[in-house]
Amino acid sequence: MKTTFVGLGIMGSPMAANLVRAGYDVTGYDTSRERVAELVAAGGRAAGSVPEAVAGADVVITMLPDSPQVEEVAFGAEGLLEHGAPGMFHVDMSTIKPETSCRVAQAATIRGIRPLDAPVSGGERGAVDGTLSIMVGGHPDDFQAIRPLLGVLGTTVRHVGPSGAGQTVKAANQLVVGGIYGLVAEAIVLLEASGVDPESGLDVLAGGLAGSRILELRRHSMIKREFAPGFRIDLHHKDMGIAIAAARRAGVSLPLTGLVAELMAAARAQGHGSLDHSALLKVIERING
Amino acid sequence: MKTTFVGLGIMGSPMAANLVRAGYDVTGYDTSRERVAELVAAGGRAAGSVPEAVAGADVVITMLPDSPQVEEVAFGAEGLLEHGAPGMFHVDMSTIKPETSCRVAQAATIRGIRPLDAPVSGGERGAVDGTLSIMVGGHPDDFQAIRPLLGVLGTTVRHVGPSGAGQTVKAANQLVVGGIYGLVAEAIVLLEASGVDPESGLDVLAGGLAGSRILELRRHSMIKREFAPGFRIDLHHKDMGIAIAAARRAGVSLPLTGLVAELMAAARAQGHGSLDHSALLKVIERING
Amino acid sequence: MKTTFVGLGIMGSPMAANLVRAGYDVTGYDTSRERVAELVAAGGRAAGSVPEAVAGADVVITMLPDSPQVEEVAFGAEGLLEHGAPGMFHVDMSTIKPETSCRVAQAATIRGIRPLDAPVSGGERGAVDGTLSIMVGGHPDDFQAIRPLLGVLGTTVRHVGPSGAGQTVKAANQLVVGGIYGLVAEAIVLLEASGVDPESGLDVLAGGLAGSRILELRRHSMIKREFAPGFRIDLHHKDMGIAIAAARRAGVSLPLTGLVAELMAAARAQGHGSLDHSALLKVIERING
Amino acid sequence: MKTTFVGLGIMGSPMAANLVRAGYDVTGYDTSRERVAELVAAGGRAAGSVPEAVAGADVVITMLPDSPQVEEVAFGAEGLLEHGAPGMFHVDMSTIKPETSCRVAQAATIRGIRPLDAPVSGGERGAVDGTLSIMVGGHPDDFQAIRPLLGVLGTTVRHVGPSGAGQTVKAANQLVVGGIYGLVAEAIVLLEASGVDPESGLDVLAGGLAGSRILELRRHSMIKREFAPGFRIDLHHKDMGIAIAAARRAGVSLPLTGLVAELMAAARAQGHGSLDHSALLKVIERING
Repeated sequence: MKTTFVGLGIMGSPMAANLVRAGYDVTGYDTSRERVAELVAAGGRAAGSVPEAVAGADVVITMLPDSPQVEEVAFGAEGLLEHGAPGMFHVDMSTIKPETSCRVAQAATIRGIRPLDAPVSGGERGAVDGTLSIMVGGHPDDFQAIRPLLGVLGTTVRHVGPSGAGQTVKAANQLVVGGIYGLVAEAIVLLEASGVDPESGLDVLAGGLAGSRILELRRHSMIKREFAPGFRIDLHHKDMGIAIAAARRAGVSLPLTGLVAELMAAARAQGHGSLDHSALLKVIERING
Repeated sequence: MKTTFVGLGIMGSPMAANLVRAGYDVTGYDTSRERVAELVAAGGRAAGSVPEAVAGADVVITMLPDSPQVEEVAFGAEGLLEHGAPGMFHVDMSTIKPETSCRVAQAATIRGIRPLDAPVSGGERGAVDGTLSIMVGGHPDDFQAIRPLLGVLGTTVRHVGPSGAGQTVKAANQLVVGGIYGLVAEAIVLLEASGVDPESGLDVLAGGLAGSRILELRRHSMIKREFAPGFRIDLHHKDMGIAIAAARRAGVSLPLTGLVAELMAAARAQGHGSLDHSALLKVIERING
Repeated sequence: MKTTFVGLGIMGSPMAANLVRAGYDVTGYDTSRERVAELVAAGGRAAGSVPEAVAGADVVITMLPDSPQVEEVAFGAEGLLEHGAPGMFHVDMSTIKPETSCRVAQAATIRGIRPLDAPVSGGERGAVDGTLSIMVGGHPDDFQAIRPLLGVLGTTVRHVGPSGAGQTVKAANQLVVGGIYGLVAEAIVLLEASGVDPESGLDVLAGGLAGSRILELRRHSMIKREFAPGFRIDLHHKDMGIAIAAARRAGVSLPLTGLVAELMAAARAQGHGSLDHSALLKVIERING
Repeated sequence: MKTTFVGLGIMGSPMAANLVRAGYDVTGYDTSRERVAELVAAGGRAAGSVPEAVAGADVVITMLPDSPQVEEVAFGAEGLLEHGAPGMFHVDMSTIKPETSCRVAQAATIRGIRPLDAPVSGGERGAVDGTLSIMVGGHPDDFQAIRPLLGVLGTTVRHVGPSGAGQTVKAANQLVVGGIYGLVAEAIVLLEASGVDPESGLDVLAGGLAGSRILELRRHSMIKREFAPGFRIDLHHKDMGIAIAAARRAGVSLPLTGLVAELMAAARAQGHGSLDHSALLKVIERING
């Protein structure tokens, strides 16, 4: 399968390299020429524009920061919908609004392009190791056709529904993750203010019904106030915006999500945008003095 | 070790039986004679009053519903502080306010009784299987002395600090558990309202950073709206009250906890007090129609 | 001043009629011909399209439901920016995002059109009686020039800052109004559940530091559960979305606003979209059973 | 009417003086002899103990900081229930839990003492000027008998229900007041972060449906960050605790109140306990950096 990768950032770069290593013929495009050069060094091919990257591709993967970039690459005069051949797959692995995903998918379908939204969870670590969780929306047949390729990039690869469903699941994922960070932060603040050793306390929590991946991976670093990313507050703030918008679009009220979104916004307002999202602890601390 | 067990309810009864099975000489007391008879049938001894139960005991364990019962059994004219011998251990495994635990411990210490607060997590299942998590506050030497006995009742047994610390950790545990139920409930409502299959969606969440013991154990039953307890809303509502009181006592502000407590109160106000705490989903559903 | 009024709905229709009565030469346009006919019956003139309505106008007022309609009327090929003459005023009295207001204003300025954003508060009653509060963003000179005309429509007319500032103040207004409805609803539920007569209770609140315009105007109707609009939940839900977006744009965290927005969303999800916003009481009631 | 005033603090002292001025025969008691001396200087009589103060009184008014003080003065061996004569009125004007009010009233009734709970709103200013709002729970006949005396202390004097009802209304009052401060704080932060002059903005809000006593009295001082009390954060934090407890007792869920209570707790945790409650603005500011 001739594969094109558009967007070679912190996530996209190792993902494209993993595809090369797995034997795929991968052409890369990014606005940064250096990143393209890195892919070439890893065994891929370079493209100087989206139309050039898309020409002759069986699959185009986009991995971009937010909706505007996806819309430009999809809908622009130099975009992949204009230049992609009928029958080509467009797999958008960016995290964007479900609503935008649906619009992109609809426009692709009209042109005979086969759209899948396939956002990921697992961060840079997962991208490098090929252990991402990938939640895929789109036609089941298209999912089956692309599954082997996605299997190179992640260990959990699930078809969750029609176009946009991948983004909705990602939004649900992010509201749960953000919320658990907030709860763990409140637990730490309560324990410390009560004179209880937080290490011992969180060890017990981690071993029982309060246990979570986050407690497992991050409790020690949170207690030590080590907030090197990982996944940045700025990105999680963007994702909480997507979750709020998705809830609004679906016509549902999510009270905890509403509050978690404001706490994440506070982390950003306090200047912690480039710290790991576990730095939500800094917000709960600051509220307390 | 001659052991007395006061409070033979859903939790206390299997815990006392486990001690008997492990070879401890266990005397039981409860306001219900039937429950005492059950313990006798299991190999324990019966007591007709607290003073009788306490006489000659090396360890008195209390497992009672709430602060007033603990205060009565501790401080009453017929109470264990009045009738216990110096050197005796008092292990209170009830879930009560840290503040009350501290007062009971202080009064015990004055009389030469050795107090430990040792609330548990893990529910009826954990009590029956002897797999509870036990978080213990009190003097480290007293903890060491009692650790083997507690090891019969639970698999995770941790000393977390001075008197009251066990209760504080339990409060932290309950705020995290209640909060995760709320977040998972919001995720389910968002997925379903967006036309996404919640089983597939939560499978992905369970496999990634959003993963938790609760998703592991309860996602299928929540999606099917099966809410047989487990751990009742009524009890979790009591526990959120303890968490709020503990935060107030410690002088800290916990915004998410404040909202989770109100959602739990809503579950009770809606008449779901005797359902499992995962029925927090019914509150998020009802908010939405 | 030759004045054009685009958007003759529940608000726009009586506002345009008030301008006619005050002696202004008013041309009206709306997608509904009936509404245009009503304005003609009241002494105005009819236009069959935006370009026709705009031709020769000194002032164009737009009063439209939401951002997409404003953007279409402003930016469309048949829009007022394309067809308005340099020097013309564009007064947008719709409630939309500050961000959209700024974009419209910027495009107008480039074409020599003088933009003001002038959203209103006071509802249908205020529109009919000419007693609206009007919060105006834009150039101070443009505000001074238009002030007499706005004085026909409202009693409180304030210049609050540059383009978009009117919308920001409106967003602040709506978050406070929505929040007070929520608080009064919680007070009513607490009083009634405690067996206290809510009329007597709210009378005391209205007379003290808890007093507000809302308690003054709506406490009796809320206690009687009379929710005829007034100002509809659907519109306030839209406005809370604007407030949330404005906060996000300004980079601030507003925790109460986040929760109020979710409660308003709940009112809509429960099917109360066409009731008065005081029906937020139904949400607090439903949470409680 | 021979009147005794127990508790001559910031509120009680001017209230007792107002009764003296109105011609009442007033005996005062306080743990501080200086305050008693001040009342004597104002024309009252001194008592050296509660029993002495209560002896021969027709009415005993208590104005104390919190439940423990009321319980001690009521129930203690040296308390007014022990030493008061049947037929005497006990008017408790302290702000305490409705539940405690009910217990005190019940004990009084058994002894033939006539209980009224009559908490006030209006602060030191209202106490000095005799313009308090007074919300009274108890028997309607007792209320009628005491009304003239209360009319000396306040301008709004309302019977709101049976014993405890006064406290419930006070709790409702405080949750609304605390909430409005929070909302106004969020409005100010949004306006300022958006570059809008907050004075102009809040002027418009004050004139419309968002208008409130708080905006009227406090918007200028809040914008200038002047937080001299007025009514202290510490006291409002205590009152939010009462509101939360009252809701819990009444079995209702109040989500906004839950969050407002945490924001007030944050104000205290940040060290603003002795500032005016409008200093809730400092919490919203700190969340934002």
